[in-house]
Amino acid sequence: MTPENIRLTRYVSVRSRSERLCAPLSAEDHVPQPVSDVSPPKWHLAHTTWFFETFVLAKQQPDYRLFHPLYGYLFNSYYESEGAHLARPQRGSLSRPTVAEVMAYRAHVDESMRRMLKEPLEPAVAALVELGMQHEQQHQELLITDIKYILGHNPLHPAYDPLGIGPQDVTAEHDGTCPPLDDWLSVEGQTIRMGHQGPGFAFDNESPSHLALIQGVDIRVALVTNDEYLQFMRDGGYQRHSLWHAEGWDWVQTLKFRAPMYWQPDPNQPDGWGHYTLQGVMPLTSQAPVTHVSYYEAHAFCDWAGWRLPTEFEWEAAASRFDWGRRWEWTRSAYQPYPGFARSEGAVGEYNGKFMVNQQVLRGASWATSPGHARLTYRNFFHAPLRWQFTGIRPVRSRESA
Amino acid sequence: MTPENIRLTRYVSVRSRSERLCAPLSAEDHVPQPVSDVSPPKWHLAHTTWFFETFVLAKQQPDYRLFHPLYGYLFNSYYESEGAHLARPQRGSLSRPTVAEVMAYRAHVDESMRRMLKEPLEPAVAALVELGMQHEQQHQELLITDIKYILGHNPLHPAYDPLGIGPQDVTAEHDGTCPPLDDWLSVEGQTIRMGHQGPGFAFDNESPSHLALIQGVDIRVALVTNDEYLQFMRDGGYQRHSLWHAEGWDWVQTLKFRAPMYWQPDPNQPDGWGHYTLQGVMPLTSQAPVTHVSYYEAHAFCDWAGWRLPTEFEWEAAASRFDWGRRWEWTRSAYQPYPGFARSEGAVGEYNGKFMVNQQVLRGASWATSPGHARLTYRNFFHAPLRWQFTGIRPVRSRESA
Amino acid sequence: MTPENIRLTRYVSVRSRSERLCAPLSAEDHVPQPVSDVSPPKWHLAHTTWFFETFVLAKQQPDYRLFHPLYGYLFNSYYESEGAHLARPQRGSLSRPTVAEVMAYRAHVDESMRRMLKEPLEPAVAALVELGMQHEQQHQELLITDIKYILGHNPLHPAYDPLGIGPQDVTAEHDGTCPPLDDWLSVEGQTIRMGHQGPGFAFDNESPSHLALIQGVDIRVALVTNDEYLQFMRDGGYQRHSLWHAEGWDWVQTLKFRAPMYWQPDPNQPDGWGHYTLQGVMPLTSQAPVTHVSYYEAHAFCDWAGWRLPTEFEWEAAASRFDWGRRWEWTRSAYQPYPGFARSEGAVGEYNGKFMVNQQVLRGASWATSPGHARLTYRNFFHAPLRWQFTGIRPVRSRESA
Amino acid sequence: MTPENIRLTRYVSVRSRSERLCAPLSAEDHVPQPVSDVSPPKWHLAHTTWFFETFVLAKQQPDYRLFHPLYGYLFNSYYESEGAHLARPQRGSLSRPTVAEVMAYRAHVDESMRRMLKEPLEPAVAALVELGMQHEQQHQELLITDIKYILGHNPLHPAYDPLGIGPQDVTAEHDGTCPPLDDWLSVEGQTIRMGHQGPGFAFDNESPSHLALIQGVDIRVALVTNDEYLQFMRDGGYQRHSLWHAEGWDWVQTLKFRAPMYWQPDPNQPDGWGHYTLQGVMPLTSQAPVTHVSYYEAHAFCDWAGWRLPTEFEWEAAASRFDWGRRWEWTRSAYQPYPGFARSEGAVGEYNGKFMVNQQVLRGASWATSPGHARLTYRNFFHAPLRWQFTGIRPVRSRESA
Repeated sequence: MTPENIRLTRYVSVRSRSERLCAPLSAEDHVPQPVSDVSPPKWHLAHTTWFFETFVLAKQQPDYRLFHPLYGYLFNSYYESEGAHLARPQRGSLSRPTVAEVMAYRAHVDESMRRMLKEPLEPAVAALVELGMQHEQQHQELLITDIKYILGHNPLHPAYDPLGIGPQDVTAEHDGTCPPLDDWLSVEGQTIRMGHQGPGFAFDNESPSHLALIQGVDIRVALVTNDEYLQFMRDGGYQRHSLWHAEGWDWVQTLKFRAPMYWQPDPNQPDGWGHYTLQGVMPLTSQAPVTHVSYYEAHAFCDWAGWRLPTEFEWEAAASRFDWGRRWEWTRSAYQPYPGFARSEGAVGEYNGKFMVNQQVLRGASWATSPGHARLTYRNFFHAPLRWQFTGIRPVRSRESA
Repeated sequence: MTPENIRLTRYVSVRSRSERLCAPLSAEDHVPQPVSDVSPPKWHLAHTTWFFETFVLAKQQPDYRLFHPLYGYLFNSYYESEGAHLARPQRGSLSRPTVAEVMAYRAHVDESMRRMLKEPLEPAVAALVELGMQHEQQHQELLITDIKYILGHNPLHPAYDPLGIGPQDVTAEHDGTCPPLDDWLSVEGQTIRMGHQGPGFAFDNESPSHLALIQGVDIRVALVTNDEYLQFMRDGGYQRHSLWHAEGWDWVQTLKFRAPMYWQPDPNQPDGWGHYTLQGVMPLTSQAPVTHVSYYEAHAFCDWAGWRLPTEFEWEAAASRFDWGRRWEWTRSAYQPYPGFARSEGAVGEYNGKFMVNQQVLRGASWATSPGHARLTYRNFFHAPLRWQFTGIRPVRSRESA
Repeated sequence: MTPENIRLTRYVSVRSRSERLCAPLSAEDHVPQPVSDVSPPKWHLAHTTWFFETFVLAKQQPDYRLFHPLYGYLFNSYYESEGAHLARPQRGSLSRPTVAEVMAYRAHVDESMRRMLKEPLEPAVAALVELGMQHEQQHQELLITDIKYILGHNPLHPAYDPLGIGPQDVTAEHDGTCPPLDDWLSVEGQTIRMGHQGPGFAFDNESPSHLALIQGVDIRVALVTNDEYLQFMRDGGYQRHSLWHAEGWDWVQTLKFRAPMYWQPDPNQPDGWGHYTLQGVMPLTSQAPVTHVSYYEAHAFCDWAGWRLPTEFEWEAAASRFDWGRRWEWTRSAYQPYPGFARSEGAVGEYNGKFMVNQQVLRGASWATSPGHARLTYRNFFHAPLRWQFTGIRPVRSRESA
Repeated sequence: MTPENIRLTRYVSVRSRSERLCAPLSAEDHVPQPVSDVSPPKWHLAHTTWFFETFVLAKQQPDYRLFHPLYGYLFNSYYESEGAHLARPQRGSLSRPTVAEVMAYRAHVDESMRRMLKEPLEPAVAALVELGMQHEQQHQELLITDIKYILGHNPLHPAYDPLGIGPQDVTAEHDGTCPPLDDWLSVEGQTIRMGHQGPGFAFDNESPSHLALIQGVDIRVALVTNDEYLQFMRDGGYQRHSLWHAEGWDWVQTLKFRAPMYWQPDPNQPDGWGHYTLQGVMPLTSQAPVTHVSYYEAHAFCDWAGWRLPTEFEWEAAASRFDWGRRWEWTRSAYQPYPGFARSEGAVGEYNGKFMVNQQVLRGASWATSPGHARLTYRNFFHAPLRWQFTGIRPVRSRESA
């Protein structure tokens, strides 16, 4: 295949996957925004399209005709350079454009994109197209987590894919395969090169590659399981202030949390709990990695167990030696620029850099991450209290400091 | 026709009208709740059905089968006697039940209701059925105002019925027919019987009928027009604190209001304004009655003009002599029980009485009120800052007090 | 005495009483504003002085020198006509001016006022002086209630006047003298003149005098006692939604109230309760009138007892036949202008009229009302949830409506 | 001198300094809490005393008598292990205990402490006493910043020490001595030992000492000056979104900030600005280091200038080669535990560790830091938007990453 063919095929494949992910939804499911962090599925479908329209077509194709003059206002997420945009919490107030109109928008943009992708591209344009596809893959995971939130917080608890036969293998969410819990890998203290190198795609926040010094630690092969987390709960984990950050303790007290998101008491289960999954409400799989925990909970659990969370560099140094990719793994590293990081010029420079304060880095990927999107140097980031993503906990044991 | 036939026909007519009002909507339009006061159309369709299911079928028909065990939780509005219910601001978070499922719910309840209505009813049950129909008619007006809010606050400003050929005559909204502005009716000071008498239906808050003393006043035949309101705006009405209640002034300052709801600056219009209507964005009709004003605005306008709002009894004493029914007319009367008012026993006792504090009475009806639902003794009520209903202003001139 | 002497004596007497009320306080007690409704005692002392400076001296005395150019900004309460003022919730942020500086401000203004009052005054000026004194008397009651709030919400519960020997007879707060509880007065249905007549001082909201129609009712000679209120509490009064206004029920649920303000559980008391008074924490006096209840609580109590609150006109028609003046008595009347009410021109027109929405009228007076300040036609007003004033409950029994 | 004498002398010296810092205040100045972060001076005086009473006397002296049973509730800041405490935002609601009573509390505790300190102490107890003194020194700086906030946000702008002759040299606040602005120190890329070593006192968050890898950078000898910051402002620094973190931009837009805290427009100054200092409102000293900037502002300034903030390790590696101690210098390092950090057992373990999320490290000290309290390894920490501390900006120039 020519490079153009490869790119075009990839474009079509990425774009169609977003639509397939929404196929099991009713029109109504595309609309709500139950909390500010969760966007309507319809919005994701349109926003990813707006990205190509705005940063590729409108800038590269002189004769490109905007699909609708107001869609830029509606579907810009946060790019200040691209002008005013709808306030984020208002996304769920919009019944229009309808799903059908959003699909027409996608078709309109895809048609122009496909025409363009048949021709060779300037490297800078090719990079923007690639960025658009990576961006859409990020939103594909958000589609899954936001759909789970919308359906899972509905008192009717409808399943997204009850039989597990849909576009994404949702049975992987509660897969109970688990390495031995006492299997720890030794990571030696060392100065080691971190971050993205080489020719493949990476986001700007993974660069520049640089040396980092890590301490010697042991890192566990297995993620923390539901069963281990239940022991923490039964031992009063949510009632003991000493295990928590001060603001984590406030969070727990104010919101009266006593379990991960989506768990619900179920007297019919031996362990007393069920949880909502994309297949509907199910018993817990005891050996599956615990998920939907906040950074506060991940920290408190580790404190209780006598462990701690890894730094992002400890994680990166060890990850090739264990199996990762089932949960986004909270690290104790705050999200900061790498030494020498410089944001790009223009709107694309807003992609990552401006979020580098007050967030924690998560490493790895989750079962809901799009195929081909995971990477050892990938840096995901969320605020400490958030837990609607498929987060998890990987334990580290400190050694004496050098 | 037998009384049973009459009642059945009326039931079918009322119920089908709700569905026809939603016919121009997309499935998506049924979902959002952009502010707490505005409910999703889907919710109105289900809640009015729940009313019949809960207060009639479940209590009167021993073999009635609930359509869904959780719908009581989802679609109870505020009846504490009927158990827990979804918090009001969460209504827009629900994508399920879908519109189709809500329609199936309606069909299920309607089938049982129709069967029941073929037989003679105990008077108490007949009264509940009538209350259910009156209740649904109230929600039909809310359907229209809530649909207007959802579409009118969408930056795309889609029309509900662009051609004015739908189930409700939306051209009446901006009808500019207007009596002479200097036509005032004299109402003599008198002691006069107020409130509902006789055999027809009325809500409990219209009773008991009782004597009220009113002062002599002049009341205008015409409502305040858009043109008059524009003069108030041009004369600095929104900038002069002395015209406003203290909390009205705070409201104006905080929310930066400068015009009624749905007005938008339009440099292409001679008067500088357009407004969103159910037919889409249109120029103002200068002689149409101003609408979508809060009690604060109605009061400030009157203060500016040297007039005041009527009390609800002045209104009721005079209304047979002028044409009313185009706007809900703010009165200066706070919503209080009539002398001798006693709430009913049971859940139905929650219908009106518990709202009798901190609201203003509105009298009359609006162009969006359901056919046959208006009544001279009708007491509508809203909080002072609200303006998404089709409210209006009727001027009164005081005379010297006796 | 000449009219000038009488006025001067009254001025000195009113002014000095404010200072005497603060005599038992520490300097620190003059500073806090624990909630927005409660102002620092220092602020009351300065604001009442600002009233004379602004509305009398600065306007009438050409050579009057403002004490400080910024005090107008600091001590204007809400008179928009007099320019910008400190936001109300900021009053407790100010440590300066100190109490001593405020006292110097008072002395400065008093000196000019005394000089002026020695001469005959234009009637309009005399009216402003009188208004200033009435205004200061209103703030004297607020001084007492605000001091009670500041000290009573301090976990140390310091007494204002432990021995009851201070400038105000604080033992009257818990005086248990009580008329027979089954003594009811009959008020006949009638048209009767209400509101202020005659030459004495009254606030603008008491005028114009006008005819009102009242229904026949029975009104109780005794206020509701602590003992009666305890029966309501023991009978689940705070747990039964059907007794409450909808917004009252929200208020109770959200704030978890279970008793009047200042009550605290005390296992050492036979009735299980103590309460904070200006003499410190004491047992309840069972026959003393219950106090510190909101309108919501007053309404719920009456609903439970099978009674209701009086309208303000029922109260005014009957009050000459019972003993009143111990508690501000909630009425079911919303605060509205009397027929023919017109606000005064200028800043003084802001005194009352702009608050005539969303408040309830209270009639009578309380033990903390300044001597000579009570009046049968007096209309006090507060928002329904407030209860830091010395409020009380007078029962009415409805008869059949006419 | 014996070790006991040295310790006793130090104790008396530290304790008396707190009281001297409050000497210029009125009683009223000790009371307000204008925002939640700013505590009343009275509270600082009592809380530092409570620390000795609770962690030393009550635990070590069997016959120690608590001064007041409720002071633990009032003056515990956040030690969950020590039981319930007053909610932080309520500190300004308390007029009692008065300043005099707080001084009596101090005298009571000091008397017991002095008696105890005359005898040799167990090392663990000696460490707690030392911690108490260090803790009080931290609160001495907070006393200065909180006093500045209380007086500086009062519209009267009273000076704390107009002549600069008080207990602290307040003229140092606006000292304009400045090294050359183009003087940069080269820091080589290296692995270097960081954190506290040796026998002297340090807080737990400075340990363990460990190796860190730093990149080669240039660090400027001079802090950013008022003059440089004015250039940033004039160049639209507060209006250009691209310079800011996303949440910094929200902060600027929402709060409408356009200059550092305490700056106020002054048309009489050539540069257009004055600022409030502890000597009262003054012109800016152009070469003095800018202060009262948030982390967001420090970051935006550096981004504008083409520089960046140092990491805390770059700072520590270079600080011995420049003059520091005038401003707390924001670093780009998030506040995280050092490798191998373990919190202490018991209440003292709450001292630092539980705050290690969502804050930025500041290094150095300020002119208001207590004598003898500064240290090269000291780690101060605040949330990104806070700016009432004496913060400053030290520029770094990146080199190419290794």
